[in-house]
Amino acid sequence: MTTPHLLDQPHHDGSALYADPGTPSLGDVVPVRLRVPAATPERAVGLRAVHDAEPAWFPARLDRADAHERWYVAELPVHNPVTTYRWLLDEPGGHRWVTGTGAVARDVSDAADFRLSTHAPPPPWTADAVVYQVFPDRFARSRAADGRALPAWAEPAAWDDDPEGHGPSTPVQLFGGDLAGVEEHLDHVQRLGANTLYLTPFFPSASNHRYDASTFDRVDPLLGGDEALASLTAAVHRRGMRVLGDLTTNHTGSGHEWFRRAQADPTSPERDLYYWREHGGLPYVSWLGVPTLPKLNWGSGETWARMVDGPASAVGRWLREPYALDGWRVDVANMTGRFGADDFGREVARRARATVLAANPDGLLVSEHFHDAADDLAGDGWMSNMNYSAFTRPLWSWVVEPGTGLDFLGVPTTVPRRPASAMVATMRELDARYAWATKARLWNLLGSHDTARIRTVTGDPAVVEVAAALLFAYPGVPAVFMGDEGGFTGDNGESGRRTMPWDQVAAGGGPRWDGRTFEAYRGLIAARRASRALRDGGLRWAVVDDDAVAFLRETEDERVLVVVARAPWAGARLPRHLTADAPELLAGGRLGATAGVTLEDDALLVSGAGPAVGVWRLA
Amino acid sequence: MTTPHLLDQPHHDGSALYADPGTPSLGDVVPVRLRVPAATPERAVGLRAVHDAEPAWFPARLDRADAHERWYVAELPVHNPVTTYRWLLDEPGGHRWVTGTGAVARDVSDAADFRLSTHAPPPPWTADAVVYQVFPDRFARSRAADGRALPAWAEPAAWDDDPEGHGPSTPVQLFGGDLAGVEEHLDHVQRLGANTLYLTPFFPSASNHRYDASTFDRVDPLLGGDEALASLTAAVHRRGMRVLGDLTTNHTGSGHEWFRRAQADPTSPERDLYYWREHGGLPYVSWLGVPTLPKLNWGSGETWARMVDGPASAVGRWLREPYALDGWRVDVANMTGRFGADDFGREVARRARATVLAANPDGLLVSEHFHDAADDLAGDGWMSNMNYSAFTRPLWSWVVEPGTGLDFLGVPTTVPRRPASAMVATMRELDARYAWATKARLWNLLGSHDTARIRTVTGDPAVVEVAAALLFAYPGVPAVFMGDEGGFTGDNGESGRRTMPWDQVAAGGGPRWDGRTFEAYRGLIAARRASRALRDGGLRWAVVDDDAVAFLRETEDERVLVVVARAPWAGARLPRHLTADAPELLAGGRLGATAGVTLEDDALLVSGAGPAVGVWRLA
Repeated sequence: MTTPHLLDQPHHDGSALYADPGTPSLGDVVPVRLRVPAATPERAVGLRAVHDAEPAWFPARLDRADAHERWYVAELPVHNPVTTYRWLLDEPGGHRWVTGTGAVARDVSDAADFRLSTHAPPPPWTADAVVYQVFPDRFARSRAADGRALPAWAEPAAWDDDPEGHGPSTPVQLFGGDLAGVEEHLDHVQRLGANTLYLTPFFPSASNHRYDASTFDRVDPLLGGDEALASLTAAVHRRGMRVLGDLTTNHTGSGHEWFRRAQADPTSPERDLYYWREHGGLPYVSWLGVPTLPKLNWGSGETWARMVDGPASAVGRWLREPYALDGWRVDVANMTGRFGADDFGREVARRARATVLAANPDGLLVSEHFHDAADDLAGDGWMSNMNYSAFTRPLWSWVVEPGTGLDFLGVPTTVPRRPASAMVATMRELDARYAWATKARLWNLLGSHDTARIRTVTGDPAVVEVAAALLFAYPGVPAVFMGDEGGFTGDNGESGRRTMPWDQVAAGGGPRWDGRTFEAYRGLIAARRASRALRDGGLRWAVVDDDAVAFLRETEDERVLVVVARAPWAGARLPRHLTADAPELLAGGRLGATAGVTLEDDALLVSGAGPAVGVWRLA
Repeated sequence: MTTPHLLDQPHHDGSALYADPGTPSLGDVVPVRLRVPAATPERAVGLRAVHDAEPAWFPARLDRADAHERWYVAELPVHNPVTTYRWLLDEPGGHRWVTGTGAVARDVSDAADFRLSTHAPPPPWTADAVVYQVFPDRFARSRAADGRALPAWAEPAAWDDDPEGHGPSTPVQLFGGDLAGVEEHLDHVQRLGANTLYLTPFFPSASNHRYDASTFDRVDPLLGGDEALASLTAAVHRRGMRVLGDLTTNHTGSGHEWFRRAQADPTSPERDLYYWREHGGLPYVSWLGVPTLPKLNWGSGETWARMVDGPASAVGRWLREPYALDGWRVDVANMTGRFGADDFGREVARRARATVLAANPDGLLVSEHFHDAADDLAGDGWMSNMNYSAFTRPLWSWVVEPGTGLDFLGVPTTVPRRPASAMVATMRELDARYAWATKARLWNLLGSHDTARIRTVTGDPAVVEVAAALLFAYPGVPAVFMGDEGGFTGDNGESGRRTMPWDQVAAGGGPRWDGRTFEAYRGLIAARRASRALRDGGLRWAVVDDDAVAFLRETEDERVLVVVARAPWAGARLPRHLTADAPELLAGGRLGATAGVTLEDDALLVSGAGPAVGVWRLA
């Protein structure tokens, strides 16, 4: 018995097959399309949009049909900045709604309605972006680093030491990586196939992670200072790549020049930048009660002026020459501007976006929001988000090795191992809350400097490749934390912040570098580059087995089948008409040979191998 | 085989058993409780709140336990104006979340999280309210009406005529009911057991429904004018009852004095009250393109001043003596202040609430929002809503006679007949999006002046009683449209606007008055009055069969079992420990004798009779 497929369901998503691409303006009319399998008994199809909080109804007409499916089209007037809609499938005995979570034969809330936004999505270059996250202290150390005096807080570590995961040395172990080191190793990033560098903070601070900035006005001299950043960004740009910084808008360090002045002089203008009230035993509000991270108070105009408004603000100045960053990842974006009855969160995002775009019309602004971020991404603020909630978390729940005991990304329990149905239901529920144009540009991750390493989560390099195949084949912008591509381990964010073993990288492998994982990543990224459908196609779930999933990525011209299995499973028979010719293997990592598809007279047979990865072009 | 029960699930809702009652303030700590059946294998229970858009974790401790269940309690700090939370049930092999839609073994969005709001719910009297909706032209005609000259638009109708449901006469047939007529028949309302009168509009207009007001400054002389309103409200108040008006904040009539001045003189201050742009072939924006209903433009300060701000505004003046309305039902509240890029909707609600409360600290403000209204009810604006989406619509889908061909409350298809699982899933999904304090005060309806009559929907007076039992036993404020209690028919809102046949009402029945339905309503309302649990208890779903549902309403002191069946079904065996003694029948309408519960040694056996209604006090 093979696992039944799900391609007998009506389908719409916001990709180009179903909605004309481009950002509409108010007053535009956008044709939107629904695809209905031939066996569906619909009598009529309609579109329910919501205009001014009231449903508005539009008929859909049959546009084309073949032996396998019918395509309906409806004209959707763009009446509000975000116009939501869903499909009505009128069928004998009742009707079904088609929403972002699928077809359902009962009334539903508007939560999973599709969304069409007049707010611009991230800049076009992000469609082809593969992000590579660098933690500057750990990536590479240039010769210039040897001559630098260490600050008093730092505990020097040798490059090959393991980082301390939990302990007093954790934030202060200094390995001495610097920006010139990054510049020297851009070849590695390009060889992997990534094209967008994301640097965790480069401002001076009193820790190795630098999220406790002591100023936003200069680059940490330990990293080489302002000149090193200008040199790095120029080198990145010469290669046709992009580079993003990392800014804390929620807080500064307690050693920040503003906070020091504010503490020293209650009449100083800096005083208003913070919350001076009792909080967790401190006389000021701080991030989750951590004394070194005093929280910025956006109730003060001074905060807006210094942080986000205009070209001289922290957001603005580093996007200008000679630094010319291509944008920011924004730390703790979700909490920024929010405290108790204060909620300036969306306004911070909106004005930060305006400053970014004024500096660089192709600039990018990505939030860190670990949780249900959709509402914060719906407007003209953050353009993308680090997609832990709708990608990392459900994926971990599927690929995790049983019994790891690992922390579940902040949830006070261990990572559960669940069937793929749980992963897919979570992805569909959370994905449905984004406009497609946003969802297709969220930063998907297998991990970051804040999490355990995917190699440790899965416990198995073969399953790392399963996870990586989802990373590079699922809608969104893949973001790789340095070292994941070489099989780095770590049971939390801190212990995973290992240094790059450049000699082993050069040798193609070694005790700290898994060359086969690197080649699997390279192959998957190359497949993504070779396939527009993988970068920008729609998403149809084809199979959801406990141990395997298959989905289609589709554009007008291309159909790609992605199959990933964490373990052996029953296999599946997909409709034969999905492909005319023998499927072309685009990628499989080292596992590609074990997964397989076979063309039969009446079916496309997917083998039940596992762990397995297969990415095939069907048409 | 009986239908399995659902009482093996962990449960929380915001009722007093689970969260201390009262409206908390920022900084308060509220104990919240989770009830877990004994067979649940939990290792630990935790609470996940969201503070400043970031999860915050609180442990839950075991508070008490018996052979059947365990109660956990956690201390929830009220950090934001609306604090959301859900439960973490750590179990072997994974964990489950407990949200407003139940327990689920996968990650979820925050959409169904419980909500604790610092915004005051509707005033306390609404806990005991049963609303009776009067359409003034059709309720009762006093002798004074005979002497009144009719306006040119009116087509006089005889009191016993059927209203025209579709046609040119529909809006202009005038039956001549008036406010003195209402005052003369308050006994009927009290005999039924209702205590809150809701009057559809009483302002002068050019239609029998009066939603096209020509002024907000006086009561229609056809209804008896200002004095008749003052007399009616005084009479209502003398009886300890309340009375609400009906105001259009979205639009006025095209015959409104403001709109006439605005049309006649583009330099007049009234010009800014409307949108002067092409819309549906008209030179101004109107409600859904209806020329007689020009839309108010809340982008103008003039609109705020005239409509909602201060005691002299339309909202304010009728709440003062000598009229002293107890509040407003607000027509088309969902669209009010919203057009294209404009969205003043929440601000209108907020300032309208402020004006209501300034006039009357016990005042009520109820929105008309037929759709997914939860987001608009989450703040300090509308206090309650006409709950079509989470009550009427799913209920109709369950009790509808097959093949009626009736319009589905605006959805361009007919009312589908679905199993109770669809009804309950819809109710749970939509209910979950409200704070309990709000949800428990939404206006539930079986119909209104805008819908078909429940008698016509069900096609069967026995099933009307099934629907009525849900109306009076489900959390919320029951709202009855005049005549439903006597079996009025009508296949749309207009044809259902029949006049009250007072001679038949007095006689206890007749061709236009079903005395048995009236007695069933009376009995159910009396049961509600006799049971605090039915008015204010929590809600646990006990059985969901295709053709029957059972649920518990529970307070600290009382447990009520409600069973309703649209047709014969298998019956159910509930846990024996739900009751110590023989259940006490509180209400069953004329069907009470057919439904039954039997106490056995190891179960509380619910019979499979249907159509059936039974409301029993278990403890």
